[in-house]
Amino acid sequence: MAGKYNVCLDIGGTKVLGVIFNEKGEIIHRLKKRTKENGDDTANIEQIIISTVKEMLEEAKLKKSDINAISAGAPGVSDSASGIVLFTPNLPWRNYDIRTPIEEKFGAKFYIGNDVNLGVLGEYKYGIAQGYNNVVGVFPGTGMGGGIIVNGKLYTGTGFKAGEIGHMVLDPEGPLCGCGQRGCFESFSSKKGMSAYIMQQVSRGRESYLSDKIENGVFRSKYLKKALKMNDKVAVEAVDRACHYMAVATGSLINIFSPDLIVYGGGIMESCGDIFLEKILDEVDKYCMPSIRPTVELKCASLGDDSVIYGALAMITEAD
Amino acid sequence: MAGKYNVCLDIGGTKVLGVIFNEKGEIIHRLKKRTKENGDDTANIEQIIISTVKEMLEEAKLKKSDINAISAGAPGVSDSASGIVLFTPNLPWRNYDIRTPIEEKFGAKFYIGNDVNLGVLGEYKYGIAQGYNNVVGVFPGTGMGGGIIVNGKLYTGTGFKAGEIGHMVLDPEGPLCGCGQRGCFESFSSKKGMSAYIMQQVSRGRESYLSDKIENGVFRSKYLKKALKMNDKVAVEAVDRACHYMAVATGSLINIFSPDLIVYGGGIMESCGDIFLEKILDEVDKYCMPSIRPTVELKCASLGDDSVIYGALAMITEAD
Repeated sequence: MAGKYNVCLDIGGTKVLGVIFNEKGEIIHRLKKRTKENGDDTANIEQIIISTVKEMLEEAKLKKSDINAISAGAPGVSDSASGIVLFTPNLPWRNYDIRTPIEEKFGAKFYIGNDVNLGVLGEYKYGIAQGYNNVVGVFPGTGMGGGIIVNGKLYTGTGFKAGEIGHMVLDPEGPLCGCGQRGCFESFSSKKGMSAYIMQQVSRGRESYLSDKIENGVFRSKYLKKALKMNDKVAVEAVDRACHYMAVATGSLINIFSPDLIVYGGGIMESCGDIFLEKILDEVDKYCMPSIRPTVELKCASLGDDSVIYGALAMITEAD
Repeated sequence: MAGKYNVCLDIGGTKVLGVIFNEKGEIIHRLKKRTKENGDDTANIEQIIISTVKEMLEEAKLKKSDINAISAGAPGVSDSASGIVLFTPNLPWRNYDIRTPIEEKFGAKFYIGNDVNLGVLGEYKYGIAQGYNNVVGVFPGTGMGGGIIVNGKLYTGTGFKAGEIGHMVLDPEGPLCGCGQRGCFESFSSKKGMSAYIMQQVSRGRESYLSDKIENGVFRSKYLKKALKMNDKVAVEAVDRACHYMAVATGSLINIFSPDLIVYGGGIMESCGDIFLEKILDEVDKYCMPSIRPTVELKCASLGDDSVIYGALAMITEAD
């Protein structure tokens, strides 16, 4: 017989966040671990997941048999039916069956899905998007992720690849994006996009508090918040530009989906959501059809760093 | 007891197309009528629908009691559950209950939906999109319409307003669109958009076969076909530009939906579909994620002018 605790993970390029939920859906334990990036040694990353779960079980004084299921969100494309990670942008996984070793190790069901998809699902099941029916999630982070709820269900498209809103082209002559195209939403409104703008301005001799805070092409959200508080001119410009394109993209998404909610999530929104949302609301009416605008609300996510974790929980409860 | 014939209508701004289907789904009668635009005299347009149905019944030697149901596609936004036309861009209907008078007149169920939505549904149930699961329809005409099939169902969004892909902003500095915004997909790739480009070039002293063929801001598709055959330079430029933005928009739609099919329909595609599709295929890989591209096909619609009619039939058969 399966146990009653659900172990949920948010697997990032540099960290694993894990929690244990009891049968009431309450978090009874929490762990955050940094992972090492080890070239193509997938077994090691699998090991980090396994060790994270084991560590949590020990700390929470639980046994394997106490687990009902394990569920994880990861960047990239996962076949949630088979548990195979098809592609990840920052982790060295290609067509990798992550389910089998985890299920064998713990004797419990294992689920996996795209992290931002699950973030939106988490907000839909447990957060700000509860009670809405058609939801588009816009999650700026290092890149720009998206998630879509259609008629109350997570929409993953053909091959679990839907929701790549970060690569909508918003300006064919815009800045070069990591994907090779110009003017993608991500190239303006993600941390990478904002950081590139800031570094460009710094290279022109302008000063910014963030100039020495950009590592591997991105700043940390808490520093952006601080820069905005200081009224750092270059940072304000980067945010204004990011929010302008957030409004453009939001307008197009409203026109396409006629959703009842657009939810903004991810690290930047957790730190600076109020500032971003105000700027987006200021401009969005220019970019969506006036007939559609009245039936859609724009809100910031409410679960913060835990939205993916809650989406992972939703995968378990929907399957149970 | 209801009859066994289904009467399906495609109600346009200037014409009504009607057909009668027998119980096997075969077309046994067909009628095309021009409508007059009469300011806000909605009763008259309702009368045109009623007279079209009556005329078809007479010609086909059928009685009211032979009708199973009547179904119509119209531009704009209709609440298909209540049969209320909420908004139409070219017809003078606002929150207009079209269902009650038609049902009273003929003693048969009446259904109504957005014409392009139904065009995509028609292709999905009876045309080229059969067997696909996630389909996005791109229908350039006077404007630019769209329709979305998600997990095998027509997606209409909150308030039946989804699918306004024509107003995705593809270039914030682009030409002014009828909606008041700049650089909408429609402003480049619809007949209005292409006609505006052609007239602009003509006003600069260039010659085009289409210069005297543009009425009320649009040309007829058959003239565009002829111009392309003649290798009319201005027309070719307009089409190249239209197809470039078709590729940009298609790329974004692929990234958002990861559909298994993009279907191009409407009058332009019926006349010049092969030419357009070749140009779009030439460029689309630049604008969609390489990981998503392999699982999506791009095709022209197969039902031509009848796609809306077949979508109207699908509304009846799905409700039955």
